[in-house]
Amino acid sequence: MAAELTAHELIARHRPTLDQALEAIRTRAYWSPHPEHPKAYGENGSLDMAAGKAAFDALLGTRLDLGQPGTDGWVDGETSPYGVELGVSYPHADLDELLPAMRAGMRAWRDAGAETRAVVCLEILKRISDRTMEFAQAVMHTSGQAFMMAFQAGGPHAQDRGMEAVAYAYVEQIRTPDTAEWTKPQGKRDPLALSKQFVPVPRGIGLVIGCNTFPTWNGYPGLFASLATGNAVLVKPHPRAVLPLALTVQVARQVLSEAGFDANLVALAAERPGEGIAKTLATRPEIRIIDYTGSTGFGDWLEANARQAQVYTEKAGVNTVIVESTADYKGMLSNLAFSLSLYSGQMCTTPQNLLIPREGIATDQGPKSFDEVAADLARAVDGLLGDDTRANALLGAIVNPDVKARLEAAGGLGEVVLASREITHPEFPGAVVRTPVIVKLDGSKPDAEAAYMSECFGPVSFAVAVDSADDAAELLRRTVREKGAMTVGAYTTSPEVEETVREVCLEEAAQLSLNLTGGVYVNQTAAFSDFHGSGGNPAANAALCDGAFVANRFRVVEVRREA
Amino acid sequence: MAAELTAHELIARHRPTLDQALEAIRTRAYWSPHPEHPKAYGENGSLDMAAGKAAFDALLGTRLDLGQPGTDGWVDGETSPYGVELGVSYPHADLDELLPAMRAGMRAWRDAGAETRAVVCLEILKRISDRTMEFAQAVMHTSGQAFMMAFQAGGPHAQDRGMEAVAYAYVEQIRTPDTAEWTKPQGKRDPLALSKQFVPVPRGIGLVIGCNTFPTWNGYPGLFASLATGNAVLVKPHPRAVLPLALTVQVARQVLSEAGFDANLVALAAERPGEGIAKTLATRPEIRIIDYTGSTGFGDWLEANARQAQVYTEKAGVNTVIVESTADYKGMLSNLAFSLSLYSGQMCTTPQNLLIPREGIATDQGPKSFDEVAADLARAVDGLLGDDTRANALLGAIVNPDVKARLEAAGGLGEVVLASREITHPEFPGAVVRTPVIVKLDGSKPDAEAAYMSECFGPVSFAVAVDSADDAAELLRRTVREKGAMTVGAYTTSPEVEETVREVCLEEAAQLSLNLTGGVYVNQTAAFSDFHGSGGNPAANAALCDGAFVANRFRVVEVRREA
Repeated sequence: MAAELTAHELIARHRPTLDQALEAIRTRAYWSPHPEHPKAYGENGSLDMAAGKAAFDALLGTRLDLGQPGTDGWVDGETSPYGVELGVSYPHADLDELLPAMRAGMRAWRDAGAETRAVVCLEILKRISDRTMEFAQAVMHTSGQAFMMAFQAGGPHAQDRGMEAVAYAYVEQIRTPDTAEWTKPQGKRDPLALSKQFVPVPRGIGLVIGCNTFPTWNGYPGLFASLATGNAVLVKPHPRAVLPLALTVQVARQVLSEAGFDANLVALAAERPGEGIAKTLATRPEIRIIDYTGSTGFGDWLEANARQAQVYTEKAGVNTVIVESTADYKGMLSNLAFSLSLYSGQMCTTPQNLLIPREGIATDQGPKSFDEVAADLARAVDGLLGDDTRANALLGAIVNPDVKARLEAAGGLGEVVLASREITHPEFPGAVVRTPVIVKLDGSKPDAEAAYMSECFGPVSFAVAVDSADDAAELLRRTVREKGAMTVGAYTTSPEVEETVREVCLEEAAQLSLNLTGGVYVNQTAAFSDFHGSGGNPAANAALCDGAFVANRFRVVEVRREA
Repeated sequence: MAAELTAHELIARHRPTLDQALEAIRTRAYWSPHPEHPKAYGENGSLDMAAGKAAFDALLGTRLDLGQPGTDGWVDGETSPYGVELGVSYPHADLDELLPAMRAGMRAWRDAGAETRAVVCLEILKRISDRTMEFAQAVMHTSGQAFMMAFQAGGPHAQDRGMEAVAYAYVEQIRTPDTAEWTKPQGKRDPLALSKQFVPVPRGIGLVIGCNTFPTWNGYPGLFASLATGNAVLVKPHPRAVLPLALTVQVARQVLSEAGFDANLVALAAERPGEGIAKTLATRPEIRIIDYTGSTGFGDWLEANARQAQVYTEKAGVNTVIVESTADYKGMLSNLAFSLSLYSGQMCTTPQNLLIPREGIATDQGPKSFDEVAADLARAVDGLLGDDTRANALLGAIVNPDVKARLEAAGGLGEVVLASREITHPEFPGAVVRTPVIVKLDGSKPDAEAAYMSECFGPVSFAVAVDSADDAAELLRRTVREKGAMTVGAYTTSPEVEETVREVCLEEAAQLSLNLTGGVYVNQTAAFSDFHGSGGNPAANAALCDGAFVANRFRVVEVRREA
């Protein structure tokens, strides 16, 4: 079959972008090829907001037939956190048929080489980018994110993370040359001479286990890292967030096919309610790589049991912000208020424990007592979310009943500084929208420890009274070491305190944001520049994205012969 | 304490070498800074052969006091495979004292940065290189290798592998810049601007578990990869091969100290007879990286149980050579004879199964039947080892009674084509020196499979009759997939057969040598150019040396703040 898209065309189309991505991961300066303003969409073949909505609406209640081999039925059942039944049905796979079919195209994909794989991946990302507004709806109605966030985080930011993985994968594969001539002098005798060929070979089939809250953002790095290194990729979405990844698989299959490769290099494994196929899949011998985002329990299970695979996990942590002193009290409060509110705190990067000295802090507004800081922060959150329209635009919907239950129970853990408030969504009355709760805890009380040393995923944070900055740093150290952390924040005007906190973060391998008071938040990272997670503490065994994230997804086979 | 050796001096001394190493791993052309001719030693401060022997003799019967904290006794007990009691005693460590002491110097080592760590490692290698002739004796009298091999493989080749690891570690750490200024446009508003700092941080203490046969060659990659990435390193030598690694630790401690770092960043963990401390060490929480060479059983145990650590294993495999046809029958036979004989086949890379079509092969000397090929190979080995002096110089001594027992039992597995012969060592009458045995097996007989599908470490190989080249390729595939392989060889003049074998090696991730008939052997790899193992089949989960071998020994912590 002649390819509709030749490698030559794709290289011409995407090589300049790849080169920019390679430069970005080297300098880590700001770069993104994916616009994050809605107005940028609607031109050059991309859907605008209305067209994206129309495309999404047209999907509802339909069967998404991906043309996968081994389809033995259809599964559906997604309900939007906004209350809408999606009614989209997806293929259910007979693994004994699908997995061998996925392997069939791997040889040609391997032989295509790193550059062709990279530009095919970039073409997939380009097609996804064109449908960003459709994906935004799909992410919104599976994760519960508010539209703007679903659009940005689920669209351009996710695409950035995917492209970043492609760039790392590409550069890793070309570190070893395709061939080498090796000539070793032998004194007066003829030199020894060998011709060597080095071939990057894939490990097998990569499995991506998606999460409910960030199906594309957390799914793309592993998907593209595995695909770009020559592996096939099976995508097992979260049962409540299938659509964004099913559309991704659909696009990938179409591009692969047009480029002359086997569409089955990428496939979907949707599951029946309660089927729990992740464990079965994760231990199949064909699965040699796993990328997982989700609970610590299952992540630990994967690391212990999927021994035939390279396992990359992003699990849960307990994120800390130390509030010791600040030169911009208002900026600090508004920055923190935003981080606590965005997507109802349902981010793995949302701060949970705010450690504040019990004797209060120094600020540009004069000294503030512990209670004042807690109350002012509560007021800042209240102010940010006081208008229901803005609150809905920031908070999104509570993603599942467990989060709601934790939120409702949080009031019993200590003194409530800020109570959660129910907000009605004007367009989606079925949405569960809640403002965050802030609870005061005394860090020296053993009974408080059970609360602040556990992850309470959702819009719950604790203002924890600590004895001193050193006490805060030691609690930070213990929290990161025992529970892990995706993010750490600190507010301090003291060089000594800053150095102490920095040293804890270096020793415990936690990513640190210092004194953020403007429009960058501790819970956000930018692809090509910020690392997401460190891979060095219990919250995640990998970082997005670095050499270690891609280097073991392929191996180099050497074929040598006498020259 | 002022450093006797400043970073500045060390950079001036070693940066040119580091740059050459970086170039070599990029081009993979021939390069080595460590001479492999004995005459090169004795100048510029290095010991010549006689001085090396004298230095080794002076060590015998002494206590090697490394000045380690937590030394709670002394252990000895090494007996050379050549029959000499070494009588060297080594510190035994109280881990609860030693491990914390090893951590104490890690902050300064981390803060020194990648370049200083690299040049300190290169200084350690330079001091080891100067004592190569002393190490040669130590390796000879622990591994049983013949002197020339102990000198070359235990000296310059091991040092090359160590330097290669330093080069990979260095380049991996500088892929991310130390700092970045990130400025994100915000339309008409002021851009968002962050100053970012990126710090490579170590994982903790690396544990190197050495092997009996190649204490330095297999020990140095992990040791230097971990040290160069900022970790402390605890070296647990094989109880029968302590001296080469104890001397290595001694040199490392001295250089670290002279360079102003804590000597305890490198330490030795020698064990009492039967103490079996590897399991205890491997699961200590302080141990975050493990490099292991040895049996599959313990390697698998480490991978399953040392969950707190990154585990790099080189285990056992079953190496295959397919003999299908050749344009240089004599060259093939002599090349194979050498590979089977070198160090009595006690290399993880020695071929075991020689797959030969039962109807014979085509050669430049006319067609040869299966029996003729087997007999001619036996004759080639006999010819190579006919002279006892040369036999002793090639074979070395049998390293332990298990190898001898396997050799003696091999005759019962099938028809013996070449019987093992006992050789007397003129200088060391206690040495057990044996020529290899070759046994014929029928690949189609189920009872033969138990023999050729198991690793028979030592001077035992099987001439296995197969039905065809395709049959050979399928047996190769099954062997690599089920048992792993460090090396694969093939002799064929047929492009189709070559392609079939190559494809099996690419799919099963095995390193392939084609048609070697001259002075390069399937069981040898050269640092900076050849990969040792692939990390993609059961014989080893890592390759020496590539990005994946170093990338996860450190993590990058980002500290960001508003610009």
